[in-house]
Amino acid sequence: MAASMRISKLIWPNLAKTVNCFHQTRNLSAPAANATKQYTLMTQKDGVRRIHLNDPKKRNALSLAMLHSLKNDLLKETAGDEEEVRIIIISGEGPVFCAGHDLKELTSETGRKYHTEIFDACTDVMLLVQDMPVPVIAQVAGLATAAGCQLVASCDIAVVSEKSRFATPGVNVGLFCSTPGVALGRAVPRKIAMEMLFTGEPITAQAALQHGLVSKVVPHEQLEEETQKLAEKICQYSSSVISLGKSCFNSQMGKSRKEAYREAGQVMVDNLSLKDGQEGIGAFVRKEHPKWSNSFDKAHE
Amino acid sequence: MAASMRISKLIWPNLAKTVNCFHQTRNLSAPAANATKQYTLMTQKDGVRRIHLNDPKKRNALSLAMLHSLKNDLLKETAGDEEEVRIIIISGEGPVFCAGHDLKELTSETGRKYHTEIFDACTDVMLLVQDMPVPVIAQVAGLATAAGCQLVASCDIAVVSEKSRFATPGVNVGLFCSTPGVALGRAVPRKIAMEMLFTGEPITAQAALQHGLVSKVVPHEQLEEETQKLAEKICQYSSSVISLGKSCFNSQMGKSRKEAYREAGQVMVDNLSLKDGQEGIGAFVRKEHPKWSNSFDKAHE
Amino acid sequence: MAASMRISKLIWPNLAKTVNCFHQTRNLSAPAANATKQYTLMTQKDGVRRIHLNDPKKRNALSLAMLHSLKNDLLKETAGDEEEVRIIIISGEGPVFCAGHDLKELTSETGRKYHTEIFDACTDVMLLVQDMPVPVIAQVAGLATAAGCQLVASCDIAVVSEKSRFATPGVNVGLFCSTPGVALGRAVPRKIAMEMLFTGEPITAQAALQHGLVSKVVPHEQLEEETQKLAEKICQYSSSVISLGKSCFNSQMGKSRKEAYREAGQVMVDNLSLKDGQEGIGAFVRKEHPKWSNSFDKAHE
Repeated sequence: MAASMRISKLIWPNLAKTVNCFHQTRNLSAPAANATKQYTLMTQKDGVRRIHLNDPKKRNALSLAMLHSLKNDLLKETAGDEEEVRIIIISGEGPVFCAGHDLKELTSETGRKYHTEIFDACTDVMLLVQDMPVPVIAQVAGLATAAGCQLVASCDIAVVSEKSRFATPGVNVGLFCSTPGVALGRAVPRKIAMEMLFTGEPITAQAALQHGLVSKVVPHEQLEEETQKLAEKICQYSSSVISLGKSCFNSQMGKSRKEAYREAGQVMVDNLSLKDGQEGIGAFVRKEHPKWSNSFDKAHE
Repeated sequence: MAASMRISKLIWPNLAKTVNCFHQTRNLSAPAANATKQYTLMTQKDGVRRIHLNDPKKRNALSLAMLHSLKNDLLKETAGDEEEVRIIIISGEGPVFCAGHDLKELTSETGRKYHTEIFDACTDVMLLVQDMPVPVIAQVAGLATAAGCQLVASCDIAVVSEKSRFATPGVNVGLFCSTPGVALGRAVPRKIAMEMLFTGEPITAQAALQHGLVSKVVPHEQLEEETQKLAEKICQYSSSVISLGKSCFNSQMGKSRKEAYREAGQVMVDNLSLKDGQEGIGAFVRKEHPKWSNSFDKAHE
Repeated sequence: MAASMRISKLIWPNLAKTVNCFHQTRNLSAPAANATKQYTLMTQKDGVRRIHLNDPKKRNALSLAMLHSLKNDLLKETAGDEEEVRIIIISGEGPVFCAGHDLKELTSETGRKYHTEIFDACTDVMLLVQDMPVPVIAQVAGLATAAGCQLVASCDIAVVSEKSRFATPGVNVGLFCSTPGVALGRAVPRKIAMEMLFTGEPITAQAALQHGLVSKVVPHEQLEEETQKLAEKICQYSSSVISLGKSCFNSQMGKSRKEAYREAGQVMVDNLSLKDGQEGIGAFVRKEHPKWSNSFDKAHE
């Protein structure tokens, strides 16, 4: 794989500005995060960053500490001469991918201000996943519920075990999955979303695939391998081209068709002016393998 | 089931303001509604209100009289010490769930003003179904066409017999299903909607499920039982939480993702401040069954 | 089939105003289109216009010359006493329906201005397909990639061979399929679109059907026959009613549900005031076959 450029230098700093910073928890009544506990485990190899939710006893609940840890891992800059991150995979330790918010953080005792902080932090992470300049894949081995289901819906791609299940069961605890509904309602048809939200009942991996919530269902024991294969496939491409394309896709989807074409057409022309745009076309014409610069260097004005 | 509160007191009055009142028919040339005929049959038990379209000879056509009757049944306040309505099921008498508008009401004789009245009344009902503070389920045993298909698409959930069929066949009578297309186009992919609208041909229950038009396909003889089961499942939850969640879901879906999160995050925090929000979380932590107040009473500010 | 009226007189001229005219290529460095070559073959019979992409050696690439030819065929007025066009079918010569842009036209040599011209021309065609007053069907026998996949997604209906495949493989040549993503992202769920865009890998005809990219999958050898049958089915209906309906559907889909109903309700009332609206209803009541005028003549004000 070609050495990748420091895309973080180009795009990551902008993110820092647009994504609200997490406030430090000062509310003394709030359950204190265990300062030594590692809520997520991060590894990186050949441009593939893996973020592993690592609180299986709490079913990888999106506690405020977990949200902080996840956000930090998403935004962490690659150190020294390490290869730049090109793709991110989020997985979970144990049989539950993620069970959503930590209900113990959502009591009258912690109070409205703290609750607001948690939902702000959660929204930040969900929007960040989409705003990241690299694709983010959910690798789901088991149950994903509530904000955990929202996380799956928010990722760009979801590779899931045939054993996985998806639910928005907030009604069981008197807390309707309204924020998960934002992501779910944009991923699956309204009828499917409403039944999930009103009944709280899980759907199977196959149903999730049928309705567009996940991208690919694989045998349980091949989950990691298949996800890795997909990640490596995407790593073969120019990271600057992937980054440009992801950003354009998400931006144009919020616009009218005509406005979307205006924007995407401009991005195509910009893409063609990149070294990597011209390298790809040239290599295709010459019947060679392209050699990506993974940069935003220009081939022409 | 816990005694439910009078949610109508809180939410129903607002509906009356936002939903245009039906005008009385004064057009003498219009087919007169049979004053003694019951276009719909309404029953209510344990919070489950059933509205049964009851004009099988006219294939349950959405005549102006039928639309009035349906709207009245949707909005009817629960009487005396009767249990409050918590969910609504709409079904149809005979082999046709609903065949759409009554074409005899749409002639040159009745005229433009009367036609406008009918489509306004129909739109009111379709929007009302979505604006109701309780979930509305379509229970479909047979054919649903034109505005009948629109009604299915407008409900929150649709449980349908394997024998059911769905079509927008207006082209056959020179009247394109433009208003049904509003609901259909938001329920299924554009390619599916357009083929249905341009050809007028029906799709099967399984295809309707595959494309998101319905929620669940069940054996014909189990249709009522399965729908009832689903309704009772939803009745187990706090009606105030369900009402809050339904309203938020529909509101946020019309907004940008970021705006939607802002709104839904606020609703989560409000939901947590409800007695029922805290009851649910408390019961979960204590490993007990929650006892809902079904009210909007507050646990904290 | 009843003689159809000259709908072009009513609607085609308006299109000419809204669709940007293609600029003549003056850039001398651009590959010159072969002046004698027929990029598309157009035939018309009984109201069915067939436009056949006819550059199989270039895998029916959407070169600027091909885009011009396609646009001309879409907009060509019916000559003399020929029957008016009522439906358009787009097919491709050879095993590839269409492979997207001609990469040789997208080099640094041809330059940014020329690239802009190509993407403007391509967007014009894609929007035109949707703005045409008659339904446009894609008949896809093989592979449709990049802007070729975008063309399929842009058509109203797509009848495809079981052997067909669909992909947005721009990443392979360093050119992310951003403009195809506009149409793809509005046709299939986000998760499916993103996997196709990020990996470049094709999906099967069945997967395309499941996710809403195409309307119907048929055996390879029956493709033309099935497409023709579907076209003839639609030709049985009033062309003015079809035109009114198509235009309303596309317009209302870009609006809020309430706004969409207001617009579509008005169109229903207008539709009913047409001769063909009243002819259809009258024939239905009389149990006769309707005789369409295919005009916008009025039955009442």
